[in-house]
Amino acid sequence: MSHLLNKEAGEGLTPIGQIGVPALIERITAQKAYRQPSTQLGVGDDAARIRSLPGDEWVVTTDMMVEGVHFDTTYFPLMHLGYKVVVAGISDVVAMNAVPRQILLALAISAKYTVEAIEELYKGVHAACAEYGIDLVGGDVTSSTGGLTITVTAIGSAPADRLIGRSGARKGELICVSGDLGAAFMGLNLLEREKRVYREDPGIQPDFGAYEYLLQRQIRPAARIDLSAAFDALGCLPTALMDISAGLGRDIAALCRASGVGCRIYEDRIPIDPLVHELAAQFQIDPTLCALSGGEDYELLFTLPASMREKLEGHPDISMLGYMTDAGDGHILVSHSGQEHELHRRMYTPGEH
Amino acid sequence: MSHLLNKEAGEGLTPIGQIGVPALIERITAQKAYRQPSTQLGVGDDAARIRSLPGDEWVVTTDMMVEGVHFDTTYFPLMHLGYKVVVAGISDVVAMNAVPRQILLALAISAKYTVEAIEELYKGVHAACAEYGIDLVGGDVTSSTGGLTITVTAIGSAPADRLIGRSGARKGELICVSGDLGAAFMGLNLLEREKRVYREDPGIQPDFGAYEYLLQRQIRPAARIDLSAAFDALGCLPTALMDISAGLGRDIAALCRASGVGCRIYEDRIPIDPLVHELAAQFQIDPTLCALSGGEDYELLFTLPASMREKLEGHPDISMLGYMTDAGDGHILVSHSGQEHELHRRMYTPGEH
Repeated sequence: MSHLLNKEAGEGLTPIGQIGVPALIERITAQKAYRQPSTQLGVGDDAARIRSLPGDEWVVTTDMMVEGVHFDTTYFPLMHLGYKVVVAGISDVVAMNAVPRQILLALAISAKYTVEAIEELYKGVHAACAEYGIDLVGGDVTSSTGGLTITVTAIGSAPADRLIGRSGARKGELICVSGDLGAAFMGLNLLEREKRVYREDPGIQPDFGAYEYLLQRQIRPAARIDLSAAFDALGCLPTALMDISAGLGRDIAALCRASGVGCRIYEDRIPIDPLVHELAAQFQIDPTLCALSGGEDYELLFTLPASMREKLEGHPDISMLGYMTDAGDGHILVSHSGQEHELHRRMYTPGEH
Repeated sequence: MSHLLNKEAGEGLTPIGQIGVPALIERITAQKAYRQPSTQLGVGDDAARIRSLPGDEWVVTTDMMVEGVHFDTTYFPLMHLGYKVVVAGISDVVAMNAVPRQILLALAISAKYTVEAIEELYKGVHAACAEYGIDLVGGDVTSSTGGLTITVTAIGSAPADRLIGRSGARKGELICVSGDLGAAFMGLNLLEREKRVYREDPGIQPDFGAYEYLLQRQIRPAARIDLSAAFDALGCLPTALMDISAGLGRDIAALCRASGVGCRIYEDRIPIDPLVHELAAQFQIDPTLCALSGGEDYELLFTLPASMREKLEGHPDISMLGYMTDAGDGHILVSHSGQEHELHRRMYTPGEH
């Protein structure tokens, strides 16, 4: 998958120095028309120009991804990387219950990357922008001494009374999550296994067969822009909202800290896809751990008033994990067997992201 | 100056892993109150919230700085680095003739950086924010496998009819520049000389003596937020505007490209401080080259109607370099001796930034 990177020289690939950064930027940012009416001016000047939307407030967020820390280009296709970086930015906008509208992308690129490699990355960037109806309006391209670093700045907007932060959760409220958790982490495990197999025998073609869903969750994640409509259908906006990027365990702790509450969640209630259970058994990993520590699911974590319980029962896309408690009660996970654990004791403690 | 970085261990410094990223973020982002009325919510949630300013349009820009490419922490003090990164972001906002209002800062940090080193960096960030009256409203902190990478996202606003891009310059208009050029580049040369001296004898204290101005232009640059008022005093907004970050030569070429014009500038007219001339003689460098290729001056480059010539004559802060021509006439520098050169032939051609 790294066939677009410079090895020693040549191979029909173009070193970036050969065409220069301005020409590279022209190649990768060519966009005929902007999708968002608020986009007044995009790439090509000192800054993008964005017109205010009457009644809306803006949200802005920035997210950095580093080669060797957040991704490994030996098995992560560059096009998917570009796509995923955009989704990560959009997800932070969605996590405020805002509508994503623009992104800016800054890249630091080491010498191993060719023009063709960066073009491949931007295919994914443009695909994600098209899918989510947003505009790439600016960025920066510079050189790096070690690998690829990407910073995405994502911009969105919504009426102020629809924006939702992390700090509004109160004791007694329901803790909910969209979709299912842990699949992106299992997808990563699959890719890493394939990398080991490939190293031993480069002739082998990867076959993810029945586990394609897990792979897709890792390399082609989705930002939950659809949840906002689901809240409207329920007739109730969440009191607190965030996206799950670091893993349910760390993210729920962050939400509790921001809101000044504790939580009590039930292992039985954590939505985990059967494929995660199946592969976790093969890999001898605890599937609950995948959900708590895996991260990159880009699902939404949110709280709703206890009065919403009946409406949520059996909801096809929203799971109630438990409820908020007093801050002093800590973060409790009630296991399948009914035992109470401090949440962080059931988690990995890998390096911070 | 790298006394805050991890050497082997200890020295009374705190590895970031010891307190964790969330605690580090709390330490470096603690801000009591926001300065901009448009800042609704800053650091601590999934995204910052920014209220629209009636009648204003937003400008947003992002800029990346990479250790070993844009800065060298062996001689560049971390506090000044933090300050300079903010100024670089603000300068891009000013280059649209907008008022800077918020920034977001994303950092990828390698293991050699301690909590104390990052705190030092943020002292500079906060000092610049205070000086320019802007708010730090968000960011990201992650780990890196090689050195420090910083991305600044800068946000500003102004009424749409005051914003100025790069594409409005027309044939016959005056090419102007604020302040003086080449000093930041000579400051960098000074620092690099001291680094060599220090390597040979670490006991020697640097003494920049009479050249303090050049040093300051490198380590404590200023964004020209004051120029907007100067334009008002002249009674005429520029037809095109950008900041000088890559060097006059490359930046004027970019402005010409964006506007579809050529240019003719006069070496005699390029504003160069006497200290640059003095030190350039010592270093045996052509001072014009410092202005054309040096970069990081953060002065403004702009065009005004030819009718403004009289008003600009003798202006204490604005120099007329020459005028715009047909695109086909190229980018011409008329030398001290009256000879015509293609501008790019008088420039360095270092790696792209």
